[in-house]
Amino acid sequence: MLRDRIRCQSLQDRLMSADEAAAMIEDGMTVGMSGFTRAGEAKAVPMALAERARNHPLKITLMTGASLGNDLDKTLTEAHALARRMPFQSDPALRKAINAGEVMFIDQHLSETVEQLRTGQIGPVDIAVVEAVAITETGGIVPTTSIGNSASFAILAKKVIVELNLAQPVTLEGLHDVYIPSRRPSRMPIPVVSPESRVGLPYIPIEPEKIVGIVVSEKQDSSSTILPPDEDTRAIAGHLTDLLLHEVRHGRMGYDLQPLQAGIGTIANAVLHGFIDKPFHDLKMYSEVLQDSTFELIDAGKMSFASASSITLSAPMYAKVLPKLGEYKPHLLLRPQEISNHPEVIRRLGIIAINTALEFDLYGNVNSTHVGGTHMMNGIGGSGDFARNAFLSIFVTKSIAKNGAISSVVPMVSHVDHTEHDVDILITEQGLADLRGLAPRERASAVIKHCVHPDYRDQMQDYYDRALGRGGQTPHLIEEALSWHQSFREAGTMRLEGRPEKRTIRQA
Amino acid sequence: MLRDRIRCQSLQDRLMSADEAAAMIEDGMTVGMSGFTRAGEAKAVPMALAERARNHPLKITLMTGASLGNDLDKTLTEAHALARRMPFQSDPALRKAINAGEVMFIDQHLSETVEQLRTGQIGPVDIAVVEAVAITETGGIVPTTSIGNSASFAILAKKVIVELNLAQPVTLEGLHDVYIPSRRPSRMPIPVVSPESRVGLPYIPIEPEKIVGIVVSEKQDSSSTILPPDEDTRAIAGHLTDLLLHEVRHGRMGYDLQPLQAGIGTIANAVLHGFIDKPFHDLKMYSEVLQDSTFELIDAGKMSFASASSITLSAPMYAKVLPKLGEYKPHLLLRPQEISNHPEVIRRLGIIAINTALEFDLYGNVNSTHVGGTHMMNGIGGSGDFARNAFLSIFVTKSIAKNGAISSVVPMVSHVDHTEHDVDILITEQGLADLRGLAPRERASAVIKHCVHPDYRDQMQDYYDRALGRGGQTPHLIEEALSWHQSFREAGTMRLEGRPEKRTIRQA
Repeated sequence: MLRDRIRCQSLQDRLMSADEAAAMIEDGMTVGMSGFTRAGEAKAVPMALAERARNHPLKITLMTGASLGNDLDKTLTEAHALARRMPFQSDPALRKAINAGEVMFIDQHLSETVEQLRTGQIGPVDIAVVEAVAITETGGIVPTTSIGNSASFAILAKKVIVELNLAQPVTLEGLHDVYIPSRRPSRMPIPVVSPESRVGLPYIPIEPEKIVGIVVSEKQDSSSTILPPDEDTRAIAGHLTDLLLHEVRHGRMGYDLQPLQAGIGTIANAVLHGFIDKPFHDLKMYSEVLQDSTFELIDAGKMSFASASSITLSAPMYAKVLPKLGEYKPHLLLRPQEISNHPEVIRRLGIIAINTALEFDLYGNVNSTHVGGTHMMNGIGGSGDFARNAFLSIFVTKSIAKNGAISSVVPMVSHVDHTEHDVDILITEQGLADLRGLAPRERASAVIKHCVHPDYRDQMQDYYDRALGRGGQTPHLIEEALSWHQSFREAGTMRLEGRPEKRTIRQA
Repeated sequence: MLRDRIRCQSLQDRLMSADEAAAMIEDGMTVGMSGFTRAGEAKAVPMALAERARNHPLKITLMTGASLGNDLDKTLTEAHALARRMPFQSDPALRKAINAGEVMFIDQHLSETVEQLRTGQIGPVDIAVVEAVAITETGGIVPTTSIGNSASFAILAKKVIVELNLAQPVTLEGLHDVYIPSRRPSRMPIPVVSPESRVGLPYIPIEPEKIVGIVVSEKQDSSSTILPPDEDTRAIAGHLTDLLLHEVRHGRMGYDLQPLQAGIGTIANAVLHGFIDKPFHDLKMYSEVLQDSTFELIDAGKMSFASASSITLSAPMYAKVLPKLGEYKPHLLLRPQEISNHPEVIRRLGIIAINTALEFDLYGNVNSTHVGGTHMMNGIGGSGDFARNAFLSIFVTKSIAKNGAISSVVPMVSHVDHTEHDVDILITEQGLADLRGLAPRERASAVIKHCVHPDYRDQMQDYYDRALGRGGQTPHLIEEALSWHQSFREAGTMRLEGRPEKRTIRQA
């Protein structure tokens, strides 16, 4: 059984326990681990590392593809094993440590981490720990449910530990397309010209001698907790499909649309789910993560191909998909996140990008990351890679949060991840603002009319009217622009009514 | 003489006056004109159009490559001929009209305008007006000192007016490389793999029948008013060359560096000028505009090739370069701005991008456009195309402005054009902050230590110390984050000392 998975003769004596492997990771090291959107992360070695750190304090810089599953970020955080973390996370315990300044978090566009590693601008990676379903005859590593940054970590690291996960189906082999751009400035075009383009190898090519340990594990990926569509997400999906049907009618695209990207999470998943009973067909995805909705669309005969860097499903969908993976395989491809998120490819393919905003403002600036302008939620992830280079850059959010105490549409966002230049369409359950070709003042009118919750509309109109009095390309009352956030911080609500002293922050 | 310039037999009867040509432009039309950084703009027709608008009111949407010379934006503004303007401008009269809300200004990444036109998301262009040195036998238009968006305007417009400028040297012919990406989603890689790559035609290919008029002009391009290097710009250049020499010593690049981009203006020009007496050699540019410093570096034997979308020089440099253009030609190439600024090519080539900030903040966010967060200066231009995709993204500015009443380094920028994710290096005359691989709190320490002017350092440290008390990935006092801008607005200075009531904007 194990010989079928470790096919490289010279590596069969590298089997070791997770504890032995973790013992190679020393205080101060930079470690690159597999894992992207809670899929395909190394599981046994980081767990053993946390155990070791509890007894023998050590701190590492941990790089991954994106978020880890199996509570690994939590466990490593609680073991005080993390000094630095990049480029993404989504764990509540780690988030708390980041916001307390205990872990330095470097929040990056997901396509850029390995680009900086390759040129020595960050790093180097001391050890890579990569989950695999198999090691080929030549020492190539066959990843599992994600590629993320694993390929470049393994190629650039001094040493590699492979976690052979027997719980991951061997049918995953053949799903991966590992293409690594050469070091600049002598780089050729990336030959991906459609979601289906297969341009690389089905494994990560490294020198077998670099594999210093092979650890066997049998732990499954964490499943995602996608909430079912609700009235609001159905309304958002409705506004989006109306827009796309309008584009089709105006000859800007066919019913096969253009390749779709959707950010991770309940809202984006629900929006894609909403395509099932619409007249679209032959849809394709070029995204960073494939969620339940991808497989629902494939099952419904609506989607013909999906390319991404990982597969992250709910428990019922995993139970359905994994046994039939062989049947889905002709429709799927997993790529390194550098390629799934590469500006070159995204711009070339003409992608329709659907991402979730934490808040957006009158002029179309989007905050994806910082609660109250200060506290990290998860990270920017791939939203910037896609939004900047998309054919159509769409951001969705519910118009209010916390039972209406927060308006997701504010006069000025408290943190900017995507500027007005990178946002074409804004959608809340209230409606859709099409910002294409509009100047900021026109954007403000569209946002107030279509996106703001009725409970906040007068308050927003009042702000905008008074800001207009000051003039400018982007009218603001600079002393009041962040007052809604201040009000929420101090009084627990962004609603200023009954709080007249809050209308202008500073009384003259 | 004219027959040498109009080589297409069937077009020789299309000669007309500027007034006749301008009469084809009607109220409400969208007009695409040549011109990029005050180079190669159509001159006679827009002037005649302004004259016409003064007598017969009309308003158009004006698209260009970037800024126009010869006070055309001023003249058109004063004739009230502009309803909408995109994607860039730099004229004081137009700026005033924009900020008064009289002209709707759509501020765009310079690579994106024609992408949106091509897909029908904006536009269509009714008439293109393009300056040329010649029309080929097949009706191809040979541009002059810029390409900008001229090629796509001419290809996509219903009608084309050519301004044949006899004052532009015919030796410009052969300098251009017109490559137009195909419409998505069926696009091939853009084959540019080095600044020298020649991948297109030396003229704009259009159906000759679309040329409805040819107007002869003899007006020269406006020269730029580059200020000579001063103590501060020399210090900035010194910090930058120190950094680059450090990168060379650490093996991250050779003395030929990687292709350089520099934004337009005095500071960026001075910074490049500073390379002349440094041990760099065989430098190349892949930029959007070639300024005086490019030719100084070529003359000094330091630069071997420069690719851009326009040539904009000071009067003395024009006088020197134009007569010898034949000698410079083997070292130069002009491209459509979609290609000079294309994310695909910029990321591939590994560009060192040097752009000017209006202000930046503690965490590395950059404002390139909005004075006081509200009033447009010029526009984002190509800075976003380059900063996002560069190998090394550098922003430079003097640490103070208006005799110290303004600190260019602020707690939070009042408008974000480039987020923390897109900024690697910040330089003022005070020093250089290398933000690569740093978390926001580490960035803040570096910025305070190296970039803030001594007059503002204590005030910034005080803000940051108090913000730290609130915690977060990006610590801020949200009610005070924009107080420096408010103070400047109300009291004419960002210095809060002696103004204790300003420390927190709102007294509890």
